[in-house]
Amino acid sequence: MDIVIIGGVAAGAKAAAKAKRIQPDANVKIYTDENHVSYSSCGLPYFIEGNFTDYRTLLVRSVEEFAASGIDVYLNSRVEKILPIQKDILIARENEAELVKYDKLIIATGARAKIPQIKGVNKFNNIYTLRKIEDGIKIRNKMLESSVVTIIGSGYIGLELLEAFVKNGLRVNVIEANKKIMGSFDDDISDLIKKRLESSSIGNFEFYTGEVVTEFIGENNNVKSVKTESGKEIQTDMVVLCAGVEPNIEIAKDAGIEIGPTGAIRVNKLMHTSIEDIFACGDCAEKKHIVSGRPVWIPLGSTANKEGRCAAMNAAGEYCEFEGVLGSTVTRCLNTTMSKTGLTEEEAKEVGFSPISALVLKTDRVAYMPEAGDITLKVVADKVTGLLLGGQAIGAVGADKRINTLTSALIGHLTVEAFNNNDLTYAPPYSTTIDPLLNAMQILTAKMAKLRQN
Amino acid sequence: MDIVIIGGVAAGAKAAAKAKRIQPDANVKIYTDENHVSYSSCGLPYFIEGNFTDYRTLLVRSVEEFAASGIDVYLNSRVEKILPIQKDILIARENEAELVKYDKLIIATGARAKIPQIKGVNKFNNIYTLRKIEDGIKIRNKMLESSVVTIIGSGYIGLELLEAFVKNGLRVNVIEANKKIMGSFDDDISDLIKKRLESSSIGNFEFYTGEVVTEFIGENNNVKSVKTESGKEIQTDMVVLCAGVEPNIEIAKDAGIEIGPTGAIRVNKLMHTSIEDIFACGDCAEKKHIVSGRPVWIPLGSTANKEGRCAAMNAAGEYCEFEGVLGSTVTRCLNTTMSKTGLTEEEAKEVGFSPISALVLKTDRVAYMPEAGDITLKVVADKVTGLLLGGQAIGAVGADKRINTLTSALIGHLTVEAFNNNDLTYAPPYSTTIDPLLNAMQILTAKMAKLRQN
Repeated sequence: MDIVIIGGVAAGAKAAAKAKRIQPDANVKIYTDENHVSYSSCGLPYFIEGNFTDYRTLLVRSVEEFAASGIDVYLNSRVEKILPIQKDILIARENEAELVKYDKLIIATGARAKIPQIKGVNKFNNIYTLRKIEDGIKIRNKMLESSVVTIIGSGYIGLELLEAFVKNGLRVNVIEANKKIMGSFDDDISDLIKKRLESSSIGNFEFYTGEVVTEFIGENNNVKSVKTESGKEIQTDMVVLCAGVEPNIEIAKDAGIEIGPTGAIRVNKLMHTSIEDIFACGDCAEKKHIVSGRPVWIPLGSTANKEGRCAAMNAAGEYCEFEGVLGSTVTRCLNTTMSKTGLTEEEAKEVGFSPISALVLKTDRVAYMPEAGDITLKVVADKVTGLLLGGQAIGAVGADKRINTLTSALIGHLTVEAFNNNDLTYAPPYSTTIDPLLNAMQILTAKMAKLRQN
Repeated sequence: MDIVIIGGVAAGAKAAAKAKRIQPDANVKIYTDENHVSYSSCGLPYFIEGNFTDYRTLLVRSVEEFAASGIDVYLNSRVEKILPIQKDILIARENEAELVKYDKLIIATGARAKIPQIKGVNKFNNIYTLRKIEDGIKIRNKMLESSVVTIIGSGYIGLELLEAFVKNGLRVNVIEANKKIMGSFDDDISDLIKKRLESSSIGNFEFYTGEVVTEFIGENNNVKSVKTESGKEIQTDMVVLCAGVEPNIEIAKDAGIEIGPTGAIRVNKLMHTSIEDIFACGDCAEKKHIVSGRPVWIPLGSTANKEGRCAAMNAAGEYCEFEGVLGSTVTRCLNTTMSKTGLTEEEAKEVGFSPISALVLKTDRVAYMPEAGDITLKVVADKVTGLLLGGQAIGAVGADKRINTLTSALIGHLTVEAFNNNDLTYAPPYSTTIDPLLNAMQILTAKMAKLRQN
């Protein structure tokens, strides 16, 4: 039995390892167009920041380790075509081509950085994107000889790089076309994130929101400044494009595999695509949102691991259903943790819920403890049913803890009323007597009671 | 309408505030035999440690603040008797007695430290227990002039005081009659706690487990040494008894109010006792365990707050059901966080489940992050149904986060299978790609699959 996997970062590497464990006699092969396999791309900002200096720290499993467990990894081997009828894939390698037979195929081609169509974007060597290990090495090396960097985009990667650059002493400009930074949060929370970051005592940086970059200007292959629609011209030594990602679906689409409404590869709960014996998982695959029931495309390393495992189980003859995602995320920038799960209030409205929300601002643990820090927590529920829909938390400490506590509640489809009974742990070094989450539930309970009276 | 509350620490103070908010015209009165009202007794070890030096930091709400919101607080006023037929309570104050009428009575008499019946226990001034603010002040003052302290008992308060004393440079002996410390954890986890604490680079302390104290020896009202059954005689400058607590139920029992099988006051979901118009809440009241369905007595400040609120709502004419507790706890001692929720494996067996467990030892976040620390996580489930029953976590960081994530799962009665779909947040500064909780679920899933095959 030949189990062939296209892509080898998170989902692909996990799928290969799992498939081989289930079917030790199967031929399990990974084809990747990259130079590395099985690495933590989420760790690249921390490599750039200098938390560790050897990029190999990011490697989860080497080609040799895969070989030792009987898995063949083919690096620098781009898959040109999937031929579903004859069950082959066509590999392009240097100047030769090769047909490789599969019984089960797992597509884990991931995503790539979006390149905004800005004048000059392809003209300069010091404009970067961050996806692969090589990108990380290049950015770090350039950073070490730069004084000013400009980040285009203010999502997760943008803010993680802001921290990395600032901690290395650079002046950082963050240019964001939208009016708010961290656009996946509700407006009120996004505003607080910006204020909180701007109040940080560390770092020399500025946010330019609502600024559209119109041109990169420079000479000798080097960008020197960034021009915006409003007429600003911002000097810079380097640029990193953090304008989002898009799924690598071309070879799947070309093979006739169905693409979902989000633009990613459509899969069912078994991670199976529309064509027999072909699975897809990780950043190239569409997901179902557990709260809204809608198809979404939220590419994350943690999801990629789960989907890779599930796809492999089904490909190798076991059974696994993947229920979907909550869109849970967490990140850090300087003094601020930002975390969310489920639907924002805006998203809840869009998909047809009647959301109400509670906003709690307090210390994350008892204020007399020296480690206490602030936390802002927003919890969203449906005002008709009381069903919990999502939460967002930011602050110095404990935001990730509150959001993870909510994820289990969302998986369990808990209402506000049921959550009121939650017996959260309490001791002064860890929480307030009434945890911020329970404060939020009390506010929601009171709001719903008031609505029922009217 | 007279709403009278006996006791004013956590449950009582909360109940008074809530009742007054619901019924602004009611006479709300708190009677307490203490010198202080509405304080955080959980904070006393941190006061002793010196995180703050003014004990008034522990006061949540002063008598004056209560008065300002129309609530009368009677300090140093012991309630001698409840007279349910005439709906009065009898107050003893200095040399006078007073009858006070109630329409609704809320008993929040709390718990007291157990005094082990050891020879000499009542003979010396430098043997302490820790419940009240005065206890904390006395212990801190004595600590400041002592070099060696002996703690009898190794539960939560015992270990919190161990940290406090060690950080103040004292030599600490902890004597525990049982073979294990932190007896509310499973044996395997308790062993790890002991090893972890003993490996701490900070502090000069020793655990004496399986050692029963037989006598306190001293002179001039001062204990000088502690004798144990095995023949040890341990020199000491002071002793703190941390041998557990027992509920203050005497006046309730005396009034004919039913006492539950745990020895605490029996209440229904409305926090109502067996006698009409009398409620009980907080450390004096019995609770229902949400996982086992059994009556338990787990006295905690966080529970006291919820129960106080609920009792007040029902007393004041609103409606509130309190579903029960999970027995969730967290504490810190030196380099170690210890947290648990739900049933231990031992408890699960006792109440009739067929438990299996998974033990995960890993870093709490990606190992290349400088903040990474170890975590040991044990998750318990029923092997027949897959129902999650509880969890225990210890380690450098993140133990409390994982246990709180489990609490929501227990409230939602999630199975291992359902939890496998949990979309926990991930980023290198916060978690591993596969969170320790999800590792545990994968181990449990595999164990259950194996059992089904056999």
